[in-house]
Amino acid sequence: MSEVAVTAMGPYWRVDFGNASAIHTEGVRAKRALETARTEVARSLGVQSSGVIFTSGGTESNNLALQGVCRSLVLAGQPYGDQQLFTTAIEHPATLRTSALLREQGVGVVTVPVTILGQVNLTALRALLTKQTVLVSVSYVNSEVGAITDTYAIRRLLDQVQKKFGTNIYLHVDAAQAPLWLPCDLPRLGADLLSLDGGKFGGPKGVGVLAVRKHVALAGIFGGGGQEQGLRPGTEPLSLIVGLAAALNEAQTLHQARAIAVAQIRDYFFTELARELPTAVFNGPPSGSARVANNVHISIPGLDSEYAVIVLDAHGIAASTKSACSSRGGGESAVVLAMTGDSARAASTLRFTLGSETTLADVDWVVAKLKEHLQLVPNFDKSR
Amino acid sequence: MSEVAVTAMGPYWRVDFGNASAIHTEGVRAKRALETARTEVARSLGVQSSGVIFTSGGTESNNLALQGVCRSLVLAGQPYGDQQLFTTAIEHPATLRTSALLREQGVGVVTVPVTILGQVNLTALRALLTKQTVLVSVSYVNSEVGAITDTYAIRRLLDQVQKKFGTNIYLHVDAAQAPLWLPCDLPRLGADLLSLDGGKFGGPKGVGVLAVRKHVALAGIFGGGGQEQGLRPGTEPLSLIVGLAAALNEAQTLHQARAIAVAQIRDYFFTELARELPTAVFNGPPSGSARVANNVHISIPGLDSEYAVIVLDAHGIAASTKSACSSRGGGESAVVLAMTGDSARAASTLRFTLGSETTLADVDWVVAKLKEHLQLVPNFDKSR
Repeated sequence: MSEVAVTAMGPYWRVDFGNASAIHTEGVRAKRALETARTEVARSLGVQSSGVIFTSGGTESNNLALQGVCRSLVLAGQPYGDQQLFTTAIEHPATLRTSALLREQGVGVVTVPVTILGQVNLTALRALLTKQTVLVSVSYVNSEVGAITDTYAIRRLLDQVQKKFGTNIYLHVDAAQAPLWLPCDLPRLGADLLSLDGGKFGGPKGVGVLAVRKHVALAGIFGGGGQEQGLRPGTEPLSLIVGLAAALNEAQTLHQARAIAVAQIRDYFFTELARELPTAVFNGPPSGSARVANNVHISIPGLDSEYAVIVLDAHGIAASTKSACSSRGGGESAVVLAMTGDSARAASTLRFTLGSETTLADVDWVVAKLKEHLQLVPNFDKSR
Repeated sequence: MSEVAVTAMGPYWRVDFGNASAIHTEGVRAKRALETARTEVARSLGVQSSGVIFTSGGTESNNLALQGVCRSLVLAGQPYGDQQLFTTAIEHPATLRTSALLREQGVGVVTVPVTILGQVNLTALRALLTKQTVLVSVSYVNSEVGAITDTYAIRRLLDQVQKKFGTNIYLHVDAAQAPLWLPCDLPRLGADLLSLDGGKFGGPKGVGVLAVRKHVALAGIFGGGGQEQGLRPGTEPLSLIVGLAAALNEAQTLHQARAIAVAQIRDYFFTELARELPTAVFNGPPSGSARVANNVHISIPGLDSEYAVIVLDAHGIAASTKSACSSRGGGESAVVLAMTGDSARAASTLRFTLGSETTLADVDWVVAKLKEHLQLVPNFDKSR
């Protein structure tokens, strides 16, 4: 966690401020701290305080967004079977598997094609949208290859289409990977709903946000007390929420400077990889505004990437083959496969995640160790 | 939080042990800490490690139990409309409103009558059970009046009935109020599923457990990564889980001594109330094995209990009119109404929650202030 989050949370662990939903003084103090945090988050995200719903993390936020919008429509008289949810094949499992749960209920789930760079194919999206489309869910930053989605362009397209059909189509943006690197205010992104995960931007794990704009109709997916306007019952984890708010504020204040600094390291990484490992193929958008600053993602066709991760790990380098939340074990990267249609490329991916503390010397070392590994692996087919 | 939980969590906040689902060394270290905590919790609860599912709290645990059992049966071919869920009218909203969500899906929800002391009416339960009954959900300790449920007696009854019908009926026990005061192992309680909330026994808020015995078929209610055997996706909040495990271990180790000590204060409280406030009516079981040690619950017919709470609060006494998780504002206690059928009694409830730090002098002071309040309130009808 960031120091600012640790410091902010301190007072709320040992002292019992009581239950934020109780009426007595201790409860009032807790309620005040909760609402201060909520206001701070709302300001960071450009929504009203009432549009900030605290959850247990990004996964729950995505579930509440997708299940909550669809259930709300059911309660308003539009059965699951008359609803269509649009997403892509390169989303996080928290979106893909939640879509599958909704499909179980009868919702039509439409997979919008993505480009070879990992971005929504807008022409295809426009052609696929129907009068039954109620929600489009995309990630702001792809959790695997770091592609940044132009969500505002999607919103503009949805505006045109919903006007034509006389319907409403919400845009849900999973921004879990974004707050350290990019602005996250909903109006600027054209997002109607936006998911965040506290642990992904220097806050504590176990807390997240679903931010919703005023016009969004949402229903809860848990039964319970009336907390979070009844949309997310359960005693509010005050210290986690206070930590999240402090970390988000810091992340959003510093994102630009952080992104500029880390992008320089990332670009150096790509340059060195291109020079030292000519067989490496880069996945996702090239460096620039369409790629998040901290992500380096390559394929080395023929590489046993699980084995490479273990070898690199032995040298103290944390790399991964795909999103940590996808199931373990070998197999192809579904994201790279959906982007490129190339199995060999999808079966040999390596992702490196940089941070503010990553140096040029770190990069040199990683590239050297990776090169060394590739030269030593006997079955590595250099001709591919 | 308890000191033991604060101390246990310390190392996991600042150091990033990585994502417990990743394969590299940091992830392995996280995974090991997670599994150590899981084993510790499993031992406290008398289940296998694979039967411990970490959630965001008691509300989510109840939702996962009820929605998860019912959805699992749907996936196995028994539609919601062919399922019956049994519960009582005095459960926590996390049970009552989750039952209502399932009713929306077609599940038959049956409300089992309770006795005037707040316990399940076993004769009525036996008469109501059918071949479609799949789940009975009751609280171990009632969150408002402190009645302890003889869950083992319910399990024995269910065993007889399911044998007769050739069916399976699970018993879910919401044990959120229990760990500081009572043993919580599932076999001893006859529970098939059991919910806990970390914040209720000296652990952190924002984490809970659903413990399930080996034979229980459960489906997740979130879509996402494969964490918690796919039953509860989302990055595991390691520090919260470690804190919960330490607090649960301490709570269960010390529960008997704590309960004996606090029950003495509670009994003194009741004696003083009976002597000083003769119009007070006690709710729930009398002192003894059927009442949790830390709960004092009375009605003073004619009392404006919201006002009394505010007056007591001004004297530094935290009392409440009903469960903090029920909606705010005035109105009757649904729990006391269901138990007694007496509106005046239900409209004038006061709950005091004792702790290990509560002294006889505290009790004297509360009783004196309450007596003072009753003498001063002009509209208080002493004849009722």
